[in-house]
Amino acid sequence: MHAIGIDIGGTKIAGAVVSETGQILAERRVATQAGDSEAIIDAVVGMVTELAAEHDVVAAGVAAPGFIDADQSTVYYTPNISWRNEPLRERLVSRLSLPVTIDNDANAAGWAEYRFGAGRDVSDMTMLTIGTGVGGAIVTGGALFRGGFGAGAELGHLRVVPDGLSCGCGARGCIEQYGSGRALLRMANEIADVGGIGLALADAREQHGALDGAIVGSLIAAGDPGAVHALEELGHWLGQACASLSAVLDPQVFVFGGGVAVAGDLLLDPVRDAFRQHVPARGYHPEPDFVIAQLVNDAGVVGAADLARAHAVAQ
Amino acid sequence: MHAIGIDIGGTKIAGAVVSETGQILAERRVATQAGDSEAIIDAVVGMVTELAAEHDVVAAGVAAPGFIDADQSTVYYTPNISWRNEPLRERLVSRLSLPVTIDNDANAAGWAEYRFGAGRDVSDMTMLTIGTGVGGAIVTGGALFRGGFGAGAELGHLRVVPDGLSCGCGARGCIEQYGSGRALLRMANEIADVGGIGLALADAREQHGALDGAIVGSLIAAGDPGAVHALEELGHWLGQACASLSAVLDPQVFVFGGGVAVAGDLLLDPVRDAFRQHVPARGYHPEPDFVIAQLVNDAGVVGAADLARAHAVAQ
Repeated sequence: MHAIGIDIGGTKIAGAVVSETGQILAERRVATQAGDSEAIIDAVVGMVTELAAEHDVVAAGVAAPGFIDADQSTVYYTPNISWRNEPLRERLVSRLSLPVTIDNDANAAGWAEYRFGAGRDVSDMTMLTIGTGVGGAIVTGGALFRGGFGAGAELGHLRVVPDGLSCGCGARGCIEQYGSGRALLRMANEIADVGGIGLALADAREQHGALDGAIVGSLIAAGDPGAVHALEELGHWLGQACASLSAVLDPQVFVFGGGVAVAGDLLLDPVRDAFRQHVPARGYHPEPDFVIAQLVNDAGVVGAADLARAHAVAQ
Repeated sequence: MHAIGIDIGGTKIAGAVVSETGQILAERRVATQAGDSEAIIDAVVGMVTELAAEHDVVAAGVAAPGFIDADQSTVYYTPNISWRNEPLRERLVSRLSLPVTIDNDANAAGWAEYRFGAGRDVSDMTMLTIGTGVGGAIVTGGALFRGGFGAGAELGHLRVVPDGLSCGCGARGCIEQYGSGRALLRMANEIADVGGIGLALADAREQHGALDGAIVGSLIAAGDPGAVHALEELGHWLGQACASLSAVLDPQVFVFGGGVAVAGDLLLDPVRDAFRQHVPARGYHPEPDFVIAQLVNDAGVVGAADLARAHAVAQ
């Protein structure tokens, strides 16, 4: 039984027909008209209709950023798209002849990792997606953890510093301000400012006008001490967050996804170091593994499709 | 179908026959010989045998402090009792003719609140037990959350202050050091030291030699400004912890149990205030309620019995 997965991102909408084993059988991609929520719904309907005409599918799952209610029906709030308490499932169902589910995009990506990727051998997985921000997903006892209102697993908003840096969520000191791609750029700029190990970062900034993820990433890959130091600082914060999350969630594995995770062990080693230093009751219970995600680009569509299929089968 | 619940505490072992609706039909109680783990097992076996002889029961559930593995079989570690990787279920099963399950005591108490108490109308509940320390329990989607290794929901060890006060768990800055009964006594002593609103606390300390929970509790009940201020400081820390926990767990209700929770709204009001100030993305998703636990003394035995019955029925 195949299903369709749609991933509504800030810049593009991706769609795919996905098999029960997580294989992608067909793909579509269009640019997101971020300001126009009606155009987004039209694009999703068009994509699903087209894919469903060419493939035998049982359901369609849509992954979207923001808060989705526990019934997987309503979008409470989406950044960048002007949805507020939008009955998205109902609106899609009225124009499609398939069962539809909607899920938070980080949850969908985490589910894909659990089913077909880095979390496939465990029952309990916690995923942190280190992109521009920090996304989260939790699987426990083989099920996706959504929370009572559907707004759980917002792991980027675990507070790590009281009265810390202001976060886009309105609170302060969230791990998103210390462990995200944007935080990495802030740290790299600070290191560039002081010279010393920051000389290569300062040169690159001078040459390109500003540092971005690609520039810092290539300096990390080249082993530049300043860029690697910034990544280590990021990893230490993330390891401290994992120590707290471990006391709460006790996963067998922490999976790191998102653009920054391509650094691999250069990111995970400082995460592991900080975790060991900060985890409560060390030595009195088993410890989790720390691994990199495996389904980097396709996780959203694969997870959304699998969740939709599982939901349709259970009805 | 009735089941037996046993709660192994630091000072006493409580046992009861519990009905399917959470009613206690018979009770036993003996002192805990804390240093003698064999005597504790003998006491549990004796209590179960006695209760099972008088009542028709389908299973026995044992609640114990510390870390229990995900299979509910082995005690990794218990404070005060010298169990280290103790195969407790196997040892009890070999001497009893009933199915036996074991669970962390805070988890058992939380389950009782979910089934028969303050959490009975929701699917997702987070419980904080404010006793000498801070215990935790999580129910999600109507199931007890144990974590991948069985060591989850140790909510007292969520970090709230980097490089903060040393915790008995070996880490620093855990909410247990800012939101527990022991923390309340520390705050009350600090307020007594400075005079002003602390005069009544200082007088009571002078008169009794030292402050304890009962003294501070009665000053709180009497509305003494110093004691109430200490409780408010405690509540503010707990509300900040709940803001982080809400981003992760998104419960519909936070339940507060343990001795300090008898203060009721005097505790919950500052918790709610701090929560509102610190919760991420306020206004973009529904907010949880904050309530006091209802099964104060019996929660451990009632929860242990209900978990054992559910486990026996599912086999």
